[in-house]
Amino acid sequence: MLKVGLLGAGRIAGVHATAISGNPGSALVAVSDINAEAAAALAAQCGAEARSTDAILNDAAIDAVLIATSTDTHSDLIERATAAGKAVLCEKPVDLSLARALACQTAATGKPVMIGFNRRFDPNFAALKAAADRGEIGKAELLSITSFDPAPPPVAYIKVSGGLFRDMMIHDFDMANFIMGAAPVTVSAVGTSIVDPAIGAAGDVDTAVVTLTYADGRIAVIKNSRRAVYGYDQRVELLGSEGLLQAQNMLENTVVKSTTSGVTGAKPTYFFLERYMPAYAAEWAAFVAAVNGGSALPVTLADGVAALAMAEAATRSAQTGAPVALADILGG
Amino acid sequence: MLKVGLLGAGRIAGVHATAISGNPGSALVAVSDINAEAAAALAAQCGAEARSTDAILNDAAIDAVLIATSTDTHSDLIERATAAGKAVLCEKPVDLSLARALACQTAATGKPVMIGFNRRFDPNFAALKAAADRGEIGKAELLSITSFDPAPPPVAYIKVSGGLFRDMMIHDFDMANFIMGAAPVTVSAVGTSIVDPAIGAAGDVDTAVVTLTYADGRIAVIKNSRRAVYGYDQRVELLGSEGLLQAQNMLENTVVKSTTSGVTGAKPTYFFLERYMPAYAAEWAAFVAAVNGGSALPVTLADGVAALAMAEAATRSAQTGAPVALADILGG
Amino acid sequence: MLKVGLLGAGRIAGVHATAISGNPGSALVAVSDINAEAAAALAAQCGAEARSTDAILNDAAIDAVLIATSTDTHSDLIERATAAGKAVLCEKPVDLSLARALACQTAATGKPVMIGFNRRFDPNFAALKAAADRGEIGKAELLSITSFDPAPPPVAYIKVSGGLFRDMMIHDFDMANFIMGAAPVTVSAVGTSIVDPAIGAAGDVDTAVVTLTYADGRIAVIKNSRRAVYGYDQRVELLGSEGLLQAQNMLENTVVKSTTSGVTGAKPTYFFLERYMPAYAAEWAAFVAAVNGGSALPVTLADGVAALAMAEAATRSAQTGAPVALADILGG
Amino acid sequence: MLKVGLLGAGRIAGVHATAISGNPGSALVAVSDINAEAAAALAAQCGAEARSTDAILNDAAIDAVLIATSTDTHSDLIERATAAGKAVLCEKPVDLSLARALACQTAATGKPVMIGFNRRFDPNFAALKAAADRGEIGKAELLSITSFDPAPPPVAYIKVSGGLFRDMMIHDFDMANFIMGAAPVTVSAVGTSIVDPAIGAAGDVDTAVVTLTYADGRIAVIKNSRRAVYGYDQRVELLGSEGLLQAQNMLENTVVKSTTSGVTGAKPTYFFLERYMPAYAAEWAAFVAAVNGGSALPVTLADGVAALAMAEAATRSAQTGAPVALADILGG
Repeated sequence: MLKVGLLGAGRIAGVHATAISGNPGSALVAVSDINAEAAAALAAQCGAEARSTDAILNDAAIDAVLIATSTDTHSDLIERATAAGKAVLCEKPVDLSLARALACQTAATGKPVMIGFNRRFDPNFAALKAAADRGEIGKAELLSITSFDPAPPPVAYIKVSGGLFRDMMIHDFDMANFIMGAAPVTVSAVGTSIVDPAIGAAGDVDTAVVTLTYADGRIAVIKNSRRAVYGYDQRVELLGSEGLLQAQNMLENTVVKSTTSGVTGAKPTYFFLERYMPAYAAEWAAFVAAVNGGSALPVTLADGVAALAMAEAATRSAQTGAPVALADILGG
Repeated sequence: MLKVGLLGAGRIAGVHATAISGNPGSALVAVSDINAEAAAALAAQCGAEARSTDAILNDAAIDAVLIATSTDTHSDLIERATAAGKAVLCEKPVDLSLARALACQTAATGKPVMIGFNRRFDPNFAALKAAADRGEIGKAELLSITSFDPAPPPVAYIKVSGGLFRDMMIHDFDMANFIMGAAPVTVSAVGTSIVDPAIGAAGDVDTAVVTLTYADGRIAVIKNSRRAVYGYDQRVELLGSEGLLQAQNMLENTVVKSTTSGVTGAKPTYFFLERYMPAYAAEWAAFVAAVNGGSALPVTLADGVAALAMAEAATRSAQTGAPVALADILGG
Repeated sequence: MLKVGLLGAGRIAGVHATAISGNPGSALVAVSDINAEAAAALAAQCGAEARSTDAILNDAAIDAVLIATSTDTHSDLIERATAAGKAVLCEKPVDLSLARALACQTAATGKPVMIGFNRRFDPNFAALKAAADRGEIGKAELLSITSFDPAPPPVAYIKVSGGLFRDMMIHDFDMANFIMGAAPVTVSAVGTSIVDPAIGAAGDVDTAVVTLTYADGRIAVIKNSRRAVYGYDQRVELLGSEGLLQAQNMLENTVVKSTTSGVTGAKPTYFFLERYMPAYAAEWAAFVAAVNGGSALPVTLADGVAALAMAEAATRSAQTGAPVALADILGG
Repeated sequence: MLKVGLLGAGRIAGVHATAISGNPGSALVAVSDINAEAAAALAAQCGAEARSTDAILNDAAIDAVLIATSTDTHSDLIERATAAGKAVLCEKPVDLSLARALACQTAATGKPVMIGFNRRFDPNFAALKAAADRGEIGKAELLSITSFDPAPPPVAYIKVSGGLFRDMMIHDFDMANFIMGAAPVTVSAVGTSIVDPAIGAAGDVDTAVVTLTYADGRIAVIKNSRRAVYGYDQRVELLGSEGLLQAQNMLENTVVKSTTSGVTGAKPTYFFLERYMPAYAAEWAAFVAAVNGGSALPVTLADGVAALAMAEAATRSAQTGAPVALADILGG
């Protein structure tokens, strides 16, 4: 039984608490948060204790911590937790600063660190990846990722988010790395603030297209929008030498209505909690299995750094209008 | 080059005229109709002559006739045309009277007669049949036919139509015979006039379900409605020991719109002319190929009589509430 | 907090135990089973006690019981539990004998009894029903239910099951009652043992079609097969004066593969546990809400009796080949 | 009745001959080709005369010419035909040289010239455009075009084609202009020869992604591959402020098969002749209607030049790796 401390008690921490409690191989022992009331409430709800982060890290009986605090604390907590001998699952991104993330990668040794790219565990994307790995469409050539949020976050959030590429598209960068099994060579980005001019005024974009090229000639393209009023639009499509694989949206239900107005089905599930709840549970199960089994984690700190480097490259490309070599980002 | 006379110049005759003219192996020579103006107009449109029916039947240069006149003339014209040495393609049904149709079957000899069950030539139903015949779903067990018109015909038409089972479901009876490759043993029907009470007042039904049983244990069920406001709903579904085959509707186009109201696609094509035009062309091509090639026609006068007998049985079953053995219908 | 005793510790009891434990408004207190080991194992797994059925029924602290024992015990346990002042949720069917079920309905008074027709709580069927009730397709006219199991049960099970109509189609009879909001007037059934002759040898059918007529002219048709090798095929389709509603199958995932062999998507979820687990949880939540809120139960003992009467009528119709009036069944 | 001369007698000329002959408002009078036998054969097949190009252009009785010759003759023939007073429908592209096309645009005056971007007349893309123009998804923000050929052409063809961007993606550039109703500001391209290294050795790419930015902040992305083994993959997707429009593929038929291997439907229609035949007929009908009605042509020579300029920009961008401003291409 893996004894777990949860750092953070916000919305996503609640999601993880459910996954931890629902897994027969793990037990949620303690919760911390800078908001003591939030920690107490979540702890009470899960039959755990509210403690300080220090208390959790210093408790030798705790085997692992899940870091679901604000992004600016991730690197520090990863380093402190691994130093304290805890296995770590940390929410994405590792950090908004690539330099800091690289330093964390160097510093965090001794214990395994997994980054929370939950979409790898979505049953649809996982099935697509498995089919591709079995060679069902031959050799991969062209990857397309469509990833639209239902509605933009508040501008106040945008301002501290690190920008669309680090905050939102980072999931898709990791998805590209997951599907392609390699990092790209170049990153070309265009972005616009056509959904909400206030997002542009805050220095960010809300709609973007990024093209990735790979050393072996493959290409990937990622499309992001902060607004798809019909729901959470999450699709992946991979063209190969022998066919095409598509992971389509999950729908709210299977009812279809035919009238004089057309044939209407349900919308995609509206938000990430509805779409990805099974993915969060599967992510945690994979973490528990790897830690308990002594096997390698399915997503590593290096994966977190790689996605962040791509976000850095895309941010720079969108600003300059020129493609950016990933090596220049990592080298410099 | 097959030289063809067209008997009838109404709507369905126009459909056939297009198919005859569009086929490189046939030429439309003459058109007749009791309405001389209609015959002249259609003939002019197709580069053919308007003539009397007698003149067409007596013209030794004409190889084949297509009978698209009113139902009550079909049997007589089949007999006269075959006696005159013409190959015949006659619109369904052979007759409203099973006795008359049986007599026609006996009398019409010497030349091949094909009945216009155009749906057998629909690319979707033909593909389903071919897949079933290749054994792709193993042994057939349960057939379902859904066949809804977009809107009921005028009650005046209903009154002379012979009733839903002879006028509308006869297509589905032939489809069942086509797919199952055998006639049923029993026919059980229920019908209701829920779409329009005036149809009920005219002694007919507008919504019906018929269940067929087969000697080898298979079952088929046919659903008809005179009204599906969203378009022409024409589906076939066959369950077998190793799978399911479904022929779904043709849609007006492939555009799908996702909004806050749902995900909406196009309706089924609205009427039989839109849905089945390719089937009429394929039907005619099959007729020409068989007549020119000296091979057997793909749909025979016996097929027309078989479907009519099932319509007769269904009409009786809907009236009595009891299943009817097809042998009792044909036997007497 | 509703305190619950679970009678039965088999497969379906385990499903219910999960639902009871997962509901924040209920607590599983005790489990009984004629197999003491099974009861102990399930109780341990859920943090409950294993007790005798008597001990559960006599414990005044227990508010409700869920009956998931073998069918032949249902009526007795419903009567004893209601007499003991417990609210009851009992698995379907009430009994294999309609007479016994009717007696139970008379005897079980004082406390509410809900019958476990879980499919009413399936999100897809519930959405279809809600859309129909909102009048989105006008007035209902023709209902079609397709309900195929992935594989037939062992013949040993068939022999004690009461037959396909009481064991399997009873769910669909209740679905018809749920969607149509009324009982039918006549029931016409045909059945065959085409999937497995051993099922026929055991006196049962494995494939069946039942047609229902209603006092207001509506029609319903139900298709059952014990074998659909591609998975659990559960569809409902309702034609109305202004459109069509269809609840389609749930699929294992959303991945679609296009190759030279065609465009292939995932199969339907394979078995009822995968398809209907959310329905079991929603069913239990509805029970808890009604019992706690003092409101009427969404499915009643009368609903259980009604479906059983239709199964009785269908069984008789399949044997005689003639339609059966439901009034004749209930009348005597 | 529009009297038409057809310049060219190759495959695509045959397609147009069918459209011309099938249109009740036009008559095919004469056909020319450098291959006299081909011209004679096509003319015979259509009831037209084989003539020289000069004879066609000099015949005052001919109202319009359709140019379906090799690309290097398009500009000359457009200039000669308009000078001879003929309305012109010319196959795409105007020329492989942008400078030559611009000169042609200047020189060809007096008579209307339409460029054969047939896809605008595809019923699916036309319906998407109409829905967007009606504001059904609000304000357009992000356009995606997927356009994959089933199989690459011979390398010999590639060598004289002008390259993927001028030969294949030019259709998609025009589609972007059609949907967006404006030319882009910048064009960014990446290309690779991953399908066939021989295509790379010939100096071309076989897989490419192009991103377009617009003055008002909109973005478009086009994906091309020379090989999609499952058929002709032609999709358009437009995200707007109030929804998403998608034009999906046409399928060979509507049959779906469910087995233990999954749920398999038909492939997309395999080649452009199958997919776009209705579009060619509609294109010609639009040309006839505009010429006869004296109204503006729906696609102009300027549209042909605009798409060619985008192809030029994309070719340059793919070579340099940097975005290209369309103004720089057109300016010099």
